[in-house]
Amino acid sequence: VTVATADNEGGRPPAWLGKLLVVGTGLMGTSLGLAVRGAGGAVHLHERDRERLALAASLGAGDPCPDTEVGVGCGSFDLAIAAVPPGQTAAVCLGLLRSGVAAVVSHMASVQLNIEGEIESSIVEVTNFVGGHPVAGRETTGPTGADAGLFHGRPWAICPPATASPEAVAAVSRLARATGAVPVQLGAREHDDLLARVSHVPQLLASVLAATVVEEPASAGLAGPGFRDMTRLADSPAAMWGEIVSANAPAVRAALDALIANLDAVRRELGGEVDETDAAQAIVDLVVRGHAGRALLPGKHGRPARLLASVLVVISDEPGSLARLFADITESAVNVEDVRLEHAPGQPRGVLELAVAPGDRDRLLAALGARGWSAVAGAEAPL
Amino acid sequence: VTVATADNEGGRPPAWLGKLLVVGTGLMGTSLGLAVRGAGGAVHLHERDRERLALAASLGAGDPCPDTEVGVGCGSFDLAIAAVPPGQTAAVCLGLLRSGVAAVVSHMASVQLNIEGEIESSIVEVTNFVGGHPVAGRETTGPTGADAGLFHGRPWAICPPATASPEAVAAVSRLARATGAVPVQLGAREHDDLLARVSHVPQLLASVLAATVVEEPASAGLAGPGFRDMTRLADSPAAMWGEIVSANAPAVRAALDALIANLDAVRRELGGEVDETDAAQAIVDLVVRGHAGRALLPGKHGRPARLLASVLVVISDEPGSLARLFADITESAVNVEDVRLEHAPGQPRGVLELAVAPGDRDRLLAALGARGWSAVAGAEAPL
Repeated sequence: VTVATADNEGGRPPAWLGKLLVVGTGLMGTSLGLAVRGAGGAVHLHERDRERLALAASLGAGDPCPDTEVGVGCGSFDLAIAAVPPGQTAAVCLGLLRSGVAAVVSHMASVQLNIEGEIESSIVEVTNFVGGHPVAGRETTGPTGADAGLFHGRPWAICPPATASPEAVAAVSRLARATGAVPVQLGAREHDDLLARVSHVPQLLASVLAATVVEEPASAGLAGPGFRDMTRLADSPAAMWGEIVSANAPAVRAALDALIANLDAVRRELGGEVDETDAAQAIVDLVVRGHAGRALLPGKHGRPARLLASVLVVISDEPGSLARLFADITESAVNVEDVRLEHAPGQPRGVLELAVAPGDRDRLLAALGARGWSAVAGAEAPL
Repeated sequence: VTVATADNEGGRPPAWLGKLLVVGTGLMGTSLGLAVRGAGGAVHLHERDRERLALAASLGAGDPCPDTEVGVGCGSFDLAIAAVPPGQTAAVCLGLLRSGVAAVVSHMASVQLNIEGEIESSIVEVTNFVGGHPVAGRETTGPTGADAGLFHGRPWAICPPATASPEAVAAVSRLARATGAVPVQLGAREHDDLLARVSHVPQLLASVLAATVVEEPASAGLAGPGFRDMTRLADSPAAMWGEIVSANAPAVRAALDALIANLDAVRRELGGEVDETDAAQAIVDLVVRGHAGRALLPGKHGRPARLLASVLVVISDEPGSLARLFADITESAVNVEDVRLEHAPGQPRGVLELAVAPGDRDRLLAALGARGWSAVAGAEAPL
């Protein structure tokens, strides 16, 4: 069950990618293998767990290396990527660098600074190591969750140590582009600080919020879709996040401090002597700042966010109702930009939200109404 | 463009619902009118903004009251619901109670205690007022966002003051059930405490997180889908949240204190003298507690959460590709329980995640593979 990326089939000559070794066939390593193979590149896979290796190979992520020692029996490589948990990344990179099996060594870990530090303290003036981190992922692990499109359009942070050669940086950038990602070069410390803010602390927040339901089970019954959204990340694997957060402890601590200070400021606005009108205005100001922040997030397909209009359609939960609906949408010749199914708990039906260009909304409403669907116009919102 | 709720058409006799007055035709009031009319009930609408009133009436939410004074010229009502912003709710309820236009008066505000307090301080031993709050909503406002299915399967908190009559409580419960909601009776203070935890504070968190992007615009480029999820609520209207949060300030403050304490505990686990292994274990424990909390959240259709398997399908962004896909799914006779489109930014394609019963996954994979789709098995997760 390979996912071939259609837009890379044929066409692009993969020779400049060279020969790639991926060490570790979890979600990230297997997805990388699938993406590079989809772009026509040559990939070998190394993995201690032989069953997992066979699975990743059968998914089409690359050719399995026969030996249990990294890189042995597969010749030499232009680039080797450590795709292992953050806690093992420095050791695997050092092993690869010392073995000389690959011209350039990089990795995919969510933290950079302590890995760079471990390598720099072991190898003086390292030239052929470059930190890397494709900012992509899913709330799942293992090769079965792999996806050739995982890196498409996502930023791929590239963090070269001061002594890294331009050729090494270029090799990792080429790899990132081959997967459809967008290389973004920045320092290891800056990477870790930014990731603490936009990934590690939000992750902890989701877990902290979800854990409050255990303290107060009565709250579960009153939790709505908003709470579900705010805790979805809490489904992520515990061991992986333990490693990521502890490996980036100083930056996470600083980001937590900043968050706590922000929350404390909100708390003070709601404090004892504050007038209710002043408190309301302070919250309004906060929500408006939040709107501004949301507007800065990149939109679909990496383009700036643009306004879309939504159409809400009531659908039954029977097999075939979505198919009939999408067939009717096709007839209307309106392109659906986004789709979300909102369930109506307690009832075997749901509301499907379709996002379309604002100018297409009325046409879609009319077309669906004419075909017997219960459809209403929803809000306009940036996507 | 009325949304008729098919499962309530005909069938149920609506006589016991009596005659309903809805004051305010925003998202909630219009949705309530649509839901009750869908159940065959009689609804009159009152709204100062005549254009908005005409729009709600034209959507099918009820008959407009001709007079600008509440309830005048429409006879008397069995039940009147104030569906106005939280800051106006107590005044509107008091006006309704004093006018005697309705036998029972309730409301739909996200806060209860200060509204109950204002009414109790104005009317001694009030028997025909009952606080109410359907825990449902959208990140939008106004009648055009209305949805007859908004309350389906959602809890409808019913908060009677100590002096409320059982008949008044029963009338509001019947209304809740008529919309498909599940009545949940609890005290006003308990309601406000629980909502502060599961709704008001998560809402503020989303805004605080989104606002950090304004402080550090570089972080926007590295923000992934997780950050987008954690800030989606930040798109909500500012004025409404200013009113809700300031009206529930003591409970929100207490919930913020609890959250800050929890975050501070995480921060200490990552502090200076803590061993990295201990820190990792503390984070693992937190994430595991979060898993337990997520498992307590009610699942789709109000049933306990159950395990679903996901199938990931690569689709192009052309009109018709979703229709072709759903037609092929229909052929496979597998029921799709949930659907989510994950966009691949930078590329005109996306990955559609289909959630199905675990036993159906392989059949769906085989069927889609046979029809030329690039489909892989994803993770199993509770829905």
